[in-house]
Amino acid sequence: MSNKKLYGIFTPNMVPLDDRGRINEPELRRIVDWLIEKGITGLYPNGSTGEFTRFSFEERKEIVRIVAEQNAGRRFVLAGAAEANVEKTIEAAAYYHSLGATAVAIVAPFYYKISQEGVYAYFSEIARSSPIDLTLYNIPQFANDISNETIKRLAAEHPRIIGIKDSSRDLPRYVNMMHDITPIRPDFVFLIGCEEILLPSLIMGGDGGTVATSGVVPEVVMKLYNLAMAGRIEEARQVQYGLLDLIKMIIFGADFPEAVRQAVGLRGFKMGRGRQPLSPSQQFSLEDVARTVQCILNQFGLTDAPPGGCDPLPLGLDRQSLDQIVQDVLHGLRAKGG
Amino acid sequence: MSNKKLYGIFTPNMVPLDDRGRINEPELRRIVDWLIEKGITGLYPNGSTGEFTRFSFEERKEIVRIVAEQNAGRRFVLAGAAEANVEKTIEAAAYYHSLGATAVAIVAPFYYKISQEGVYAYFSEIARSSPIDLTLYNIPQFANDISNETIKRLAAEHPRIIGIKDSSRDLPRYVNMMHDITPIRPDFVFLIGCEEILLPSLIMGGDGGTVATSGVVPEVVMKLYNLAMAGRIEEARQVQYGLLDLIKMIIFGADFPEAVRQAVGLRGFKMGRGRQPLSPSQQFSLEDVARTVQCILNQFGLTDAPPGGCDPLPLGLDRQSLDQIVQDVLHGLRAKGG
Amino acid sequence: MSNKKLYGIFTPNMVPLDDRGRINEPELRRIVDWLIEKGITGLYPNGSTGEFTRFSFEERKEIVRIVAEQNAGRRFVLAGAAEANVEKTIEAAAYYHSLGATAVAIVAPFYYKISQEGVYAYFSEIARSSPIDLTLYNIPQFANDISNETIKRLAAEHPRIIGIKDSSRDLPRYVNMMHDITPIRPDFVFLIGCEEILLPSLIMGGDGGTVATSGVVPEVVMKLYNLAMAGRIEEARQVQYGLLDLIKMIIFGADFPEAVRQAVGLRGFKMGRGRQPLSPSQQFSLEDVARTVQCILNQFGLTDAPPGGCDPLPLGLDRQSLDQIVQDVLHGLRAKGG
Amino acid sequence: MSNKKLYGIFTPNMVPLDDRGRINEPELRRIVDWLIEKGITGLYPNGSTGEFTRFSFEERKEIVRIVAEQNAGRRFVLAGAAEANVEKTIEAAAYYHSLGATAVAIVAPFYYKISQEGVYAYFSEIARSSPIDLTLYNIPQFANDISNETIKRLAAEHPRIIGIKDSSRDLPRYVNMMHDITPIRPDFVFLIGCEEILLPSLIMGGDGGTVATSGVVPEVVMKLYNLAMAGRIEEARQVQYGLLDLIKMIIFGADFPEAVRQAVGLRGFKMGRGRQPLSPSQQFSLEDVARTVQCILNQFGLTDAPPGGCDPLPLGLDRQSLDQIVQDVLHGLRAKGG
Repeated sequence: MSNKKLYGIFTPNMVPLDDRGRINEPELRRIVDWLIEKGITGLYPNGSTGEFTRFSFEERKEIVRIVAEQNAGRRFVLAGAAEANVEKTIEAAAYYHSLGATAVAIVAPFYYKISQEGVYAYFSEIARSSPIDLTLYNIPQFANDISNETIKRLAAEHPRIIGIKDSSRDLPRYVNMMHDITPIRPDFVFLIGCEEILLPSLIMGGDGGTVATSGVVPEVVMKLYNLAMAGRIEEARQVQYGLLDLIKMIIFGADFPEAVRQAVGLRGFKMGRGRQPLSPSQQFSLEDVARTVQCILNQFGLTDAPPGGCDPLPLGLDRQSLDQIVQDVLHGLRAKGG
Repeated sequence: MSNKKLYGIFTPNMVPLDDRGRINEPELRRIVDWLIEKGITGLYPNGSTGEFTRFSFEERKEIVRIVAEQNAGRRFVLAGAAEANVEKTIEAAAYYHSLGATAVAIVAPFYYKISQEGVYAYFSEIARSSPIDLTLYNIPQFANDISNETIKRLAAEHPRIIGIKDSSRDLPRYVNMMHDITPIRPDFVFLIGCEEILLPSLIMGGDGGTVATSGVVPEVVMKLYNLAMAGRIEEARQVQYGLLDLIKMIIFGADFPEAVRQAVGLRGFKMGRGRQPLSPSQQFSLEDVARTVQCILNQFGLTDAPPGGCDPLPLGLDRQSLDQIVQDVLHGLRAKGG
Repeated sequence: MSNKKLYGIFTPNMVPLDDRGRINEPELRRIVDWLIEKGITGLYPNGSTGEFTRFSFEERKEIVRIVAEQNAGRRFVLAGAAEANVEKTIEAAAYYHSLGATAVAIVAPFYYKISQEGVYAYFSEIARSSPIDLTLYNIPQFANDISNETIKRLAAEHPRIIGIKDSSRDLPRYVNMMHDITPIRPDFVFLIGCEEILLPSLIMGGDGGTVATSGVVPEVVMKLYNLAMAGRIEEARQVQYGLLDLIKMIIFGADFPEAVRQAVGLRGFKMGRGRQPLSPSQQFSLEDVARTVQCILNQFGLTDAPPGGCDPLPLGLDRQSLDQIVQDVLHGLRAKGG
Repeated sequence: MSNKKLYGIFTPNMVPLDDRGRINEPELRRIVDWLIEKGITGLYPNGSTGEFTRFSFEERKEIVRIVAEQNAGRRFVLAGAAEANVEKTIEAAAYYHSLGATAVAIVAPFYYKISQEGVYAYFSEIARSSPIDLTLYNIPQFANDISNETIKRLAAEHPRIIGIKDSSRDLPRYVNMMHDITPIRPDFVFLIGCEEILLPSLIMGGDGGTVATSGVVPEVVMKLYNLAMAGRIEEARQVQYGLLDLIKMIIFGADFPEAVRQAVGLRGFKMGRGRQPLSPSQQFSLEDVARTVQCILNQFGLTDAPPGGCDPLPLGLDRQSLDQIVQDVLHGLRAKGG
């Protein structure tokens, strides 16, 4: 489909936890198999959705090991490898390389505010020492920004840096980035991390996306991607709009990524309790969010309705395009015998 | 093309000034004729590009009068009508109505930070009294934000409010807005004010845009719009990318909108000196910007090269798609005998 | 007290409006007399509290005329003179000069975001042409920031620029500014526009403040200033703390400056309805705020309690230091026969 | 001096590294002794200045162990204990308790943006399980903000939470915080983390500060603190102003805390190379900063001048108050036989 090293839809998987709050390895393996079965292009352990900062170094290595083993070469594995300092990051990258990861994703330094010159120095040092290809990960909401100028500079100097995952939610910036970098690095991979505009990014020439929603409704997100790649823009647009309410609930319905955890649970996985404490009022509100998400998934034909049923339709959800999506997804599932 | 009250490309025209710093009426009339001849769908006096805050109330009325008279019903006229308070704003709206404006655009209150409840109250009071349809104008960089919730509330209550011009540069927000409001107000007009993503906004169902670049290269922007409307996405995308360098220079090359003034001047209009003072170093730097803009326009075949010629190509400009655009524009001009 | 051209407490007066929304001249004259009687050092018409942007150019001139006439040379008059462009600003400054204003205050350009070079050019051009001394007015929440570097550059080049009113609420910045500018301009005036930290600013060497609360409780603010000037820091601190609840309510209790209007009204002035529309829920909430303000003023001994009485004490109000302030103010009033 | 559990000046020490980038234990012990000898009130390992995020969990424990052992009960030890999740944080707190730390400091969650309800839940869960008193650490530039409302709620519910270190640089907020919380928790400790306004915070009733500059010139910072506590405000003010240029250079002269490392090195400690990579241009610029810092320290009489000597005086440094400080510090050193 693409001659780039990475492309398509990457799922930043959440990590299921057991009753004692430890990584639930069997359930994580089940999730990997399920995502692959639903057609996901790539696995992305230790992403922001995967709460990488809430695990220890050892746990992060364990997560990638489980995912890479279970994948067994079937899909791309893009492994989040940012650690406390450059030395540890290189150590992680080397380990993920040994596990067969396709590439590692390195988020910009966070907590301290550093200059673009510092961001440049950071990625340069990693790129010089990494035994595996790497992608920049830009998420200025959480970490230091990586400016288009810096990305260009890094792309020009380091063949090891093969692409970027951009979660800035800023399409003007994204198109300028593709415009500026493609002439000097035609192989550079552009993955968007803002699911509301996955389709526009693909139409403008992007290579794919890292999409939290793909961990909840992989069938629908892959449908969107495949329609877009096939140039069936009108249908793809309907799917994109059909996803907006779900995206709003799971990304913004609670402190991220708590609502994603609920939503993945609704697809039949035991996710356990998250590591970030929730107040009683947060727990109560999260139950509401989960009920709404269940109603949306039910309208997609992917879950039962919650006890007590659903209100007619969440405000703003377009019945017609939703029906269309539901029909298509059901049809696709039947065709596969799914 | 559309059954909405407004659609297409609106040019927020700059105001040419004479040697004494007064409105240059003959030149403004020439600009109006030129824009109409090049195919622009609508005129938009007193926009941000038009520096409405730097003119007096009397001057703003004069500007709309000149534009509306010269237009003589040929195109839409969307007139910026925000004044110091509601009473004056209504007075302006009534006057623009009497001049034959299609609608007025009202920017959210600026300077003071006010709550969304206050933004709602402000537009509600205007909508109740306005003798003419109005569009909200959201530009959170400069004025109070109008949240999607507030827009939805206003759209539901006030038929007088027929649409929005959104310059937030935030496509995720824009698609959510269209998704939420269209079901309750199918006639609501969505115009984007971020020219780097004009094409994506149109593909996602937007009705058009208010585009400063259309005051500089109306031929090219209309080509983009017409290709998009015709579903010729691949070609439209090339035009969109071909515009990015020009957009970067004229929007961000100097304190906005000084570089736009230079660029319009390069198309053959006497724009005069702006009202915002420039330091010597700013003037010097603006000359550099103007030279680069001239080189880009020259590559479009729309101006001579500057004295001393041009460097091969501004960084990041994609030769191939540029050639394509240039060929198409030249071809179009020849076809019209232009 | 000071050998600087300006010092002390300046009241940015609100403008009382009559039933038709016009300037209520007799009431404005009453306010001026009352402020002078209570000991205020300076009058500051057309400040942000005075809602300068919601009046027309003609009205702003009228406001200064009334204030300057009624003042009749008794106190400093610092007149806000920012208009739509430099030419109009100079025109306003000249007129205020003719009315006997001590100096004019010019806010940085707002709405458009401009570079520091542009901010420098703007003030330089005004300083070159102004017939009257001027102070910079920095309020980055509402207008373009004036960086410490730019202030230093302007102070070094333009004797006409005699000081700054800084409302950035940023004391680290304020002390650095005093530290950097005083050596090159020992006459430069520093007025703070953040009333919660009036006392710390004075202790660090500031010359005074422009304080919205001084339009509500001029007796208390002048007490704070006079104690600070007399080196009676412990007592001044109690007054500063005693003011915090009032400040919180009138500055942040409603969209600024609506709660100030209520508070001034509680001191016996007919303020009329503001020009910014309020929604029904805003009006309801403003009544609550007014009731709380009345209770605080009642505790100062300055108003009756509202009908229905007051709750024991607004949360966080320190009974002991409040009693102290009340005793002192009452004592001061008795001593003056007030 | 105070009946609170913590008060005075806490030094957030940097961690010296050896040639292989490992913790240099002997040098760290030397730093602890030196700080104590110079009169510092408390030690604060694993603060932001101490680059806690760039070390591993094991290293952070090692750092506190070394500092606590070397301190041997002579001064307060406030140990930074934030880890990847609540369980690890409790583990760290328990270990620091066993080492004899006075309290632990817990920064708000960072990277993910969470709601105030989430911030509340986070600190509540830690407070319920911690075997040692804890202080909140608010640094909204780097981590989620802890609003005054949330602090009040936590202070009211959890006796284990005994204070706050506030680095928001926002004095209006700080005085409101002290005003709101002291009545309900008279024992609550307020430490400011903004060194430009240490004196104003003390005058307003604060209990002390965590001050990076105290790791460079502990003599001068303690002098400021002691003068302030003695009510010698005028002299304290001169010291505060005398510190401003040094603060500007070491806090803002390079990506924080690189310039602090240089400055501590100038006091005679082998700090090693930091873990955050620096580009060639950053290294070059850092040398400039170090030279300026050396000149300032030389003017305090604390170092030799750099090779090549110093320019007359860094811009903005006030010769007179500097001389005063230098005299006082030298005098103090002689008196101690230092």
